[in-house]
Amino acid sequence: MSAGAVVTVLELVGLYVFATSGALMAIHKGFDVVGIVILALLTALGGGILRDVIIGDTPPPAFAHLTYLGIPLAAAAVTFFIHPLAQRLSFTVLVFDAAGLGLFCVTGTLKAFEHDLGPIQAVLLGITTAVGGGVLRDITARETPALVKADTHLYAIPAAAGAVAVAAAHEAGLPMPPVAVAAAVFVFAFRLAAMLRKWTAPRAWQRRPPADPS
Amino acid sequence: MSAGAVVTVLELVGLYVFATSGALMAIHKGFDVVGIVILALLTALGGGILRDVIIGDTPPPAFAHLTYLGIPLAAAAVTFFIHPLAQRLSFTVLVFDAAGLGLFCVTGTLKAFEHDLGPIQAVLLGITTAVGGGVLRDITARETPALVKADTHLYAIPAAAGAVAVAAAHEAGLPMPPVAVAAAVFVFAFRLAAMLRKWTAPRAWQRRPPADPS
Amino acid sequence: MSAGAVVTVLELVGLYVFATSGALMAIHKGFDVVGIVILALLTALGGGILRDVIIGDTPPPAFAHLTYLGIPLAAAAVTFFIHPLAQRLSFTVLVFDAAGLGLFCVTGTLKAFEHDLGPIQAVLLGITTAVGGGVLRDITARETPALVKADTHLYAIPAAAGAVAVAAAHEAGLPMPPVAVAAAVFVFAFRLAAMLRKWTAPRAWQRRPPADPS
Repeated sequence: MSAGAVVTVLELVGLYVFATSGALMAIHKGFDVVGIVILALLTALGGGILRDVIIGDTPPPAFAHLTYLGIPLAAAAVTFFIHPLAQRLSFTVLVFDAAGLGLFCVTGTLKAFEHDLGPIQAVLLGITTAVGGGVLRDITARETPALVKADTHLYAIPAAAGAVAVAAAHEAGLPMPPVAVAAAVFVFAFRLAAMLRKWTAPRAWQRRPPADPS
Repeated sequence: MSAGAVVTVLELVGLYVFATSGALMAIHKGFDVVGIVILALLTALGGGILRDVIIGDTPPPAFAHLTYLGIPLAAAAVTFFIHPLAQRLSFTVLVFDAAGLGLFCVTGTLKAFEHDLGPIQAVLLGITTAVGGGVLRDITARETPALVKADTHLYAIPAAAGAVAVAAAHEAGLPMPPVAVAAAVFVFAFRLAAMLRKWTAPRAWQRRPPADPS
Repeated sequence: MSAGAVVTVLELVGLYVFATSGALMAIHKGFDVVGIVILALLTALGGGILRDVIIGDTPPPAFAHLTYLGIPLAAAAVTFFIHPLAQRLSFTVLVFDAAGLGLFCVTGTLKAFEHDLGPIQAVLLGITTAVGGGVLRDITARETPALVKADTHLYAIPAAAGAVAVAAAHEAGLPMPPVAVAAAVFVFAFRLAAMLRKWTAPRAWQRRPPADPS
């Protein structure tokens, strides 16, 4: 499979899993079917549109190709019917979000390189693409974004690690299809492990208990 | 009246009513006059700037023509003095928001066509223009956006219906001035009816009560 | 010192103080080190990226020069260790935010002029640059933005005053280095005075107590 085809597949799977995380969040919050569709689309497309607007690639492909709409819609529909299979919705949201994180930090970084940006910029845009959809989903659903929440077990670090790995491999001229897949899987596993083993990043010394209600 | 003039009038009225919804929301939340002006400007201009940035039409006209500032400011001023006429502020916000929804889903869709986008893209951008200002207003005022709130009676569906109607009429070559006005009125009426008759869209099966506090 | 060098220095100091306000907010909310870094970067770069995307200057310089990353990171690191020196974190956030407000309303207005925008547009973009980072910080940290909060003592008015002063001086051909520094100091002092003397802007007449919980 060619490098471009691999990246496209990763991006489509990323759209699906992020849309699923958005739909699950909407169901968890009791939104109606319209809210479910909107949150699915916003989570799936948000990070990519943010990146495209920053790069200057307007109108973004999400508005140009029906696939970018069809896949999140399909994910929302599937989730609408099979979500009772999930025991704890809020945890399942994070599992699908972790998958999207891995896939999009890879495709986002690679897309930045396609637009002739340097490695540091590509890493930043890869991270932005990976976390952007989740942040928009959380803010719209009135949750503290998983990106910054006090008890989040490592969210941006796995995304950053994946983006850095992909950028380094790109600069070193390594073959991208296996690197891309490996990085996506690695980030997903890293994030899942952090969630399950409750790895946390250090906090600042607190004089009094923190003010965050969540 | 020419097609362009009709669209311009619709857009100016849309700016006014959306600004009024923002000012009413700010007064409802007890914001000072600066917060009232800001929320009025944000609601009136937010959806259009979002659409312009996505299309690539930068700097957006809102930053180029004083009318785009003057009309929301006038609306904020008028609202500042006559808002006690409204019995229930939160409901009145939604009435003005419904009017803006109708007007902007039409003008947003038409603007996308002016930039040579296809019908599906035009519909998406019309919906974005219509709901964007309201979402920004709600997020800034710390409300769950009416777009996704659990007990919202059909918000995006009327906007989508209007955008689709305008896009279909455009593709069929129908004369736009009457279609544009009719679509705006239809969306406004549709949304008002949904609010008053409490039409709701289906929800997903819930194992336990939903987690949304509002 | 040349005009360009003065503006650059003002911008770098602005990055530092806004990043500090973001880091302090994150520590106040109990975020971990990743959340602290993210909130610092978001507050420092958010207003500028918003302005650059609206102007059409993409990719924004923040993604092109390491200094734009290094300074917020340094501010976050310093804040991480010396924040216990602050007696009241939430007040200290606002002090650093006031400094950033002054610096960025000046540099934002001047950057708009560099891109050949007119004075009204430059003022609007200067205000956007000044308040944008703080709004993004507050929304992400789940606070009502200081920009619109009911008990905020004059936030946008000082920023607007500074932007207007800079634009007027630019149109009058006054030498910019002293004007820029004076305007930044003036806005900082104006905002601090408003905070300490609790100056408020008028509110609208309220039939019942306002609905804002904060």
